[in-house]
Amino acid sequence: MPSHPTPLRFDRLLLTGAAGGLGRELRTRLKAYCDVLRLSDISDLGAAAAGEELMPAPLEDAAAVHALLAGVDAVVHLGGVSTEQPWQPILQANIIGTYNLYEAARKHGVKRVVFASSNHVTGFYRQDEVVSPKDPMRPDGLYGLSKAFGENLAQFYFDRYGIETVSVRIGSSFPEPKNRRMLATWMSFDDLERLVMAALTAPVIGHSVIYGMGDNTTTWWDNTSARHVGYRPQDSSERFRAKVEAADPKPDLSDPAVIYQGGPFVRTGPFD
Amino acid sequence: MPSHPTPLRFDRLLLTGAAGGLGRELRTRLKAYCDVLRLSDISDLGAAAAGEELMPAPLEDAAAVHALLAGVDAVVHLGGVSTEQPWQPILQANIIGTYNLYEAARKHGVKRVVFASSNHVTGFYRQDEVVSPKDPMRPDGLYGLSKAFGENLAQFYFDRYGIETVSVRIGSSFPEPKNRRMLATWMSFDDLERLVMAALTAPVIGHSVIYGMGDNTTTWWDNTSARHVGYRPQDSSERFRAKVEAADPKPDLSDPAVIYQGGPFVRTGPFD
Amino acid sequence: MPSHPTPLRFDRLLLTGAAGGLGRELRTRLKAYCDVLRLSDISDLGAAAAGEELMPAPLEDAAAVHALLAGVDAVVHLGGVSTEQPWQPILQANIIGTYNLYEAARKHGVKRVVFASSNHVTGFYRQDEVVSPKDPMRPDGLYGLSKAFGENLAQFYFDRYGIETVSVRIGSSFPEPKNRRMLATWMSFDDLERLVMAALTAPVIGHSVIYGMGDNTTTWWDNTSARHVGYRPQDSSERFRAKVEAADPKPDLSDPAVIYQGGPFVRTGPFD
Amino acid sequence: MPSHPTPLRFDRLLLTGAAGGLGRELRTRLKAYCDVLRLSDISDLGAAAAGEELMPAPLEDAAAVHALLAGVDAVVHLGGVSTEQPWQPILQANIIGTYNLYEAARKHGVKRVVFASSNHVTGFYRQDEVVSPKDPMRPDGLYGLSKAFGENLAQFYFDRYGIETVSVRIGSSFPEPKNRRMLATWMSFDDLERLVMAALTAPVIGHSVIYGMGDNTTTWWDNTSARHVGYRPQDSSERFRAKVEAADPKPDLSDPAVIYQGGPFVRTGPFD
Amino acid sequence: MPSHPTPLRFDRLLLTGAAGGLGRELRTRLKAYCDVLRLSDISDLGAAAAGEELMPAPLEDAAAVHALLAGVDAVVHLGGVSTEQPWQPILQANIIGTYNLYEAARKHGVKRVVFASSNHVTGFYRQDEVVSPKDPMRPDGLYGLSKAFGENLAQFYFDRYGIETVSVRIGSSFPEPKNRRMLATWMSFDDLERLVMAALTAPVIGHSVIYGMGDNTTTWWDNTSARHVGYRPQDSSERFRAKVEAADPKPDLSDPAVIYQGGPFVRTGPFD
Amino acid sequence: MPSHPTPLRFDRLLLTGAAGGLGRELRTRLKAYCDVLRLSDISDLGAAAAGEELMPAPLEDAAAVHALLAGVDAVVHLGGVSTEQPWQPILQANIIGTYNLYEAARKHGVKRVVFASSNHVTGFYRQDEVVSPKDPMRPDGLYGLSKAFGENLAQFYFDRYGIETVSVRIGSSFPEPKNRRMLATWMSFDDLERLVMAALTAPVIGHSVIYGMGDNTTTWWDNTSARHVGYRPQDSSERFRAKVEAADPKPDLSDPAVIYQGGPFVRTGPFD
Repeated sequence: MPSHPTPLRFDRLLLTGAAGGLGRELRTRLKAYCDVLRLSDISDLGAAAAGEELMPAPLEDAAAVHALLAGVDAVVHLGGVSTEQPWQPILQANIIGTYNLYEAARKHGVKRVVFASSNHVTGFYRQDEVVSPKDPMRPDGLYGLSKAFGENLAQFYFDRYGIETVSVRIGSSFPEPKNRRMLATWMSFDDLERLVMAALTAPVIGHSVIYGMGDNTTTWWDNTSARHVGYRPQDSSERFRAKVEAADPKPDLSDPAVIYQGGPFVRTGPFD
Repeated sequence: MPSHPTPLRFDRLLLTGAAGGLGRELRTRLKAYCDVLRLSDISDLGAAAAGEELMPAPLEDAAAVHALLAGVDAVVHLGGVSTEQPWQPILQANIIGTYNLYEAARKHGVKRVVFASSNHVTGFYRQDEVVSPKDPMRPDGLYGLSKAFGENLAQFYFDRYGIETVSVRIGSSFPEPKNRRMLATWMSFDDLERLVMAALTAPVIGHSVIYGMGDNTTTWWDNTSARHVGYRPQDSSERFRAKVEAADPKPDLSDPAVIYQGGPFVRTGPFD
Repeated sequence: MPSHPTPLRFDRLLLTGAAGGLGRELRTRLKAYCDVLRLSDISDLGAAAAGEELMPAPLEDAAAVHALLAGVDAVVHLGGVSTEQPWQPILQANIIGTYNLYEAARKHGVKRVVFASSNHVTGFYRQDEVVSPKDPMRPDGLYGLSKAFGENLAQFYFDRYGIETVSVRIGSSFPEPKNRRMLATWMSFDDLERLVMAALTAPVIGHSVIYGMGDNTTTWWDNTSARHVGYRPQDSSERFRAKVEAADPKPDLSDPAVIYQGGPFVRTGPFD
Repeated sequence: MPSHPTPLRFDRLLLTGAAGGLGRELRTRLKAYCDVLRLSDISDLGAAAAGEELMPAPLEDAAAVHALLAGVDAVVHLGGVSTEQPWQPILQANIIGTYNLYEAARKHGVKRVVFASSNHVTGFYRQDEVVSPKDPMRPDGLYGLSKAFGENLAQFYFDRYGIETVSVRIGSSFPEPKNRRMLATWMSFDDLERLVMAALTAPVIGHSVIYGMGDNTTTWWDNTSARHVGYRPQDSSERFRAKVEAADPKPDLSDPAVIYQGGPFVRTGPFD
Repeated sequence: MPSHPTPLRFDRLLLTGAAGGLGRELRTRLKAYCDVLRLSDISDLGAAAAGEELMPAPLEDAAAVHALLAGVDAVVHLGGVSTEQPWQPILQANIIGTYNLYEAARKHGVKRVVFASSNHVTGFYRQDEVVSPKDPMRPDGLYGLSKAFGENLAQFYFDRYGIETVSVRIGSSFPEPKNRRMLATWMSFDDLERLVMAALTAPVIGHSVIYGMGDNTTTWWDNTSARHVGYRPQDSSERFRAKVEAADPKPDLSDPAVIYQGGPFVRTGPFD
Repeated sequence: MPSHPTPLRFDRLLLTGAAGGLGRELRTRLKAYCDVLRLSDISDLGAAAAGEELMPAPLEDAAAVHALLAGVDAVVHLGGVSTEQPWQPILQANIIGTYNLYEAARKHGVKRVVFASSNHVTGFYRQDEVVSPKDPMRPDGLYGLSKAFGENLAQFYFDRYGIETVSVRIGSSFPEPKNRRMLATWMSFDDLERLVMAALTAPVIGHSVIYGMGDNTTTWWDNTSARHVGYRPQDSSERFRAKVEAADPKPDLSDPAVIYQGGPFVRTGPFD
């Protein structure tokens, strides 16, 4: 049963990054909300299930991305690099790739995007600060920078062309939180589905930014400004607290990865 | 059983607009909290039940309104026009009428008013914005303008005369939400009762403004600044989402009634 | 020589309230910026000078006001009651009258209004607070309430009909400050002219709110949010400080007229 | 069973003020989270239970306090005066005493303090205002002033020496709310325990300020800025509303103790 | 000729700290505004000039301070420690001493204080941040802590007893700026006089906080919230820039005294 | 004579974009503040004057940019595309190029950059709004997007590597304002020099964002948060008002280029 109560269906949804961790999870879930689910990635997507359409495409290939957007009602854009990496892959997939995606959406008249942004857009805030989507960006690396670029791109495509986007600053979406940082940042797959579907079906969204987190007791983010999105998380990291804390009883406060919200990303690299 | 847990009782409460949609609902509910419930309207109020007092009065009639306030402990002021209408009825009932009501309260020493204001006081904010009671007013029509006038009047009567008011910017209070807009704006009758009683019984209220909405997943309003009122909604529009969304799958983003919080009010009229 | 450096001219400007204190002052000044200056009031306007057009009209007379707006490019609306008075004159001239004015503007396609609002819209803030046009209104009397109504009306006519207004919350515009309160609130006639002309000629104004004050050393208002209006005061009350302070060495802090920004308005009335 | 789910344990915790109302309550609860619980007070502490260490010490005695901090991992500092009192006891225990405590912590390398601050740091805000930990302090008496001093001290010891503190602005922690004010300010002992343990175990806390209140329907405080502390109250004063309101049906709005958040503290004293 | 244009005179002003650097400067200046200038300090005050009254008093001596306040109209309180020092002198003169001063003012009915607070109340903000008097305090040492205490005390004595204070967070008042930090913090003696007199003569001041700085090009502070005080600086540090910068071409960014607004205070001490 | 009063000199400054409009202007001005001025561009730089060093380099060439940064004390980075253009040139020069510049600065230990950002980072705000550097970005095109990227990059290189940047959101720096938009956005070359030198010589700058505008009467931007930079403009567009307004008496409010701050940039392109 879908996690989100909407009965709204799409003719054709595009899911990029469908072979990644969250992509594989959403692949099985989004099918419930559309007739055709077009899946794209550069990694192997396996065989198409009923109602699925496979269209592998490198995001930096403008022509391929143009083809990808043809005939779709809306896009869930998870594609691209999702970890801190050297400049070249991030430039190609996340900067050039996201530009290609929005240009293709504009040319094909696609009007709604759910953009997988990241908490790393504000990863250089401290873990004792509470940040809102309206606060200035403080990316914690090249990956965060590329997601900041994507959010600004989404804002521009709304202001200029009326393409609506929800930029979801995803925290940590895994079966369960793996460490103490994730007590704050964790979002269950069910909550991820709820958030993506709320973002796809809200009638008026402009460009909205929302942190993708669960109903956690410890949080660093204040989503008040995004209540219109219609996302209410239902799963909390709290039931994993004992296990997670037991595994890491003494965080080292001299480690930037402990102090800053971005965690290890804030000290990954430089790569050359 | 009353929805609000207070044991506080009033000797005599005045309910204006008692023949209207919300008035009829509150008529049966408020009786539990007072010895005498004085009811007023210009429409037929039917027969008085036990403990009820019927005093029909046009709000624009200062003398009649003066009589209405005699001997009451507090007022729930629903009276007046509650839809977008031409200037004359709004001027008479909502502007002149509300002035008459506060003047009468001042002269009779009535110290507490619950004023049925409206979300249309801020109806020209977009549906992708989250608004707080402290944000500048943006009325969406003559009705919203008259409610903005009422709120400012209430502020003045507190600052000058110490008459306390809670201005409730009512969203949409119906048995159930009728359309997608109401997923954000809906408030159940039980929640309405809770809010009115909290507003009547809070010890210190000054002039407080609060949005009248349920515990909805999708909201446009942030009531943080009004937590002292002591209202916590318990009913959510979410259980109606499937039904409501199915009936309106494709809102038209070129329609101001879709874009703005005020809905159809933003394009009703002009009337001549 | 005009105080404001603009070379822009209007074919026909309407000045309401032209027989009042500020009206008489602006009558001689505005002529420099238009071919025809239409003057209106209910008091005697004297004889028409070259380029002047006299059209007496009570603001509460919708038909008369409709005629008044015919053929004008823009309006400087000083008309109506400008002191604290009983409800009836304020209702007629300021509430009904301002509504009539905007309706007439709408019907005639007039697109720019300079609305003489008042600092009394926020007169119940204390004199040790600094208020911005974005802060909640706190009118200090019926006059302030009527100006608050006018500002909200202006906001509505912009949001709905695109009629642009600068609401000028005039402080105290006299030849010189008369008392200690006016050290904060004073605006010279030259600065008044600068502000009105900036408001008439700024290319994009939406509905903007600005306090009408001079370059005073003591101020209660922060016009940062209105810098786009293009008003920079050049006259300061400071040169009158010695004279004004000598006349009132010991303000009485138990007097609300001393404590609140609205001065004596906060304790004028009630009138019956 | 502990109220807070953390498995983290301390070798030695110091609890000051252990003989006071909250001290006695936490004495039995904190033991579950540490090997040794060192208890201090100037009142009789009774006999040491297993795992307890008794070290009576007047806080104004720097040497005694220095000894107190030796070998502890973290401090829960409830010690000192906790009611409005004359200047001397407050000066000695709360100002000099808290300084002694932080100096001792610095010298012994103790890096985490939970400081029992008080809502009286902001007690001169009105009961119809919602206050955040970031708003300017408005202490309501000498006690509130001393707690404000303690918070600033904690901020300084973090900024200069890296000693982390959660300043908990405790509302009213009793078995149940005793009056209408406590409907807003009440915090159960279980919630107190949750909050103290969250403050002790959060990895990164800097100097954080949080109001210590329950999940109450009526509140005056907004803890949004302290969500990173990881405190979510689970008990509400609401189930006591009927009893409490029945006992005080008519608060007197001319009484500062009714109007201001600090309650009777705002009019206690002066003492000479 | 006085720097401030006010003609208002006091019968008797009290200047504490009159033998200190700023005290000696104000001693000669304040005389112009009062019949009797009472001077106090613990250091030698020399001989009394005409219209001067010498009353040496240690601030920690409550009886002596009580006598000091007898018969005065207003106080300019510069007394106490004005540099970072060990706890004892700061406790005695600044914490106990300021408490004694306000208690004496209360008992004698003195209603206006100008309190020499300090920029060190917020000295742990960075030099690339702009701070307002409404931002949370971040004292940079014991001296800053004692001034924060004084400001909170002033707020309390206004809220409870109606004693009005302007807390002046003095930057650096010297004949000229001595180093690069002072380009931001410098205030000339003439500007100091202007500010003190504005604070003494403004009709309504409540408790207002203002940074004491000149019309400097480089600043760290935003006094917008204190415009009602009526202070407009006229002297700028800019004419000293070349000299000051030449003497310190390469600030060391690893030095906290360079990074933080408090300068060397942030690393003075600890003293034992 | 230099416009900025600093006596501080650099051994070697790098000026990129030295052949562009502002580059040619700064080339002659910056020489006064350094021993060697290294100039770079892809356009012809003419012959090197005394104390000049010419190093043409395409910004997208990482190796060339690496060489460019060798041995420099600080960088004034004007290089790259400075108008709305198709994606490819903007990607190459502004996104890849700015990344190359910061990487080179990191590797060479260059610690100060003045980055020529642009008002087009926030060009989709309306002309009746006043924007601060802390408000969310709303770029008006690909050029604005690339400058937003550069600002975020600068923030990251400060947070991670301690490289300090002032991002100057340049308005319109020309000999005089050319149109009505520039009455708000204009900055004289002298003011540009003042701002660049303040940014180069301020001791502590972190990553600061400031709008590059003159002392204009009409403005859209509030630089309060950047006062620590030490920039005070001295030239105003006001003396050009008559000429500019006469040339454009009737801006067309249906034109986005009139409504939005970005002017014609908001409707330039798309390019394919």
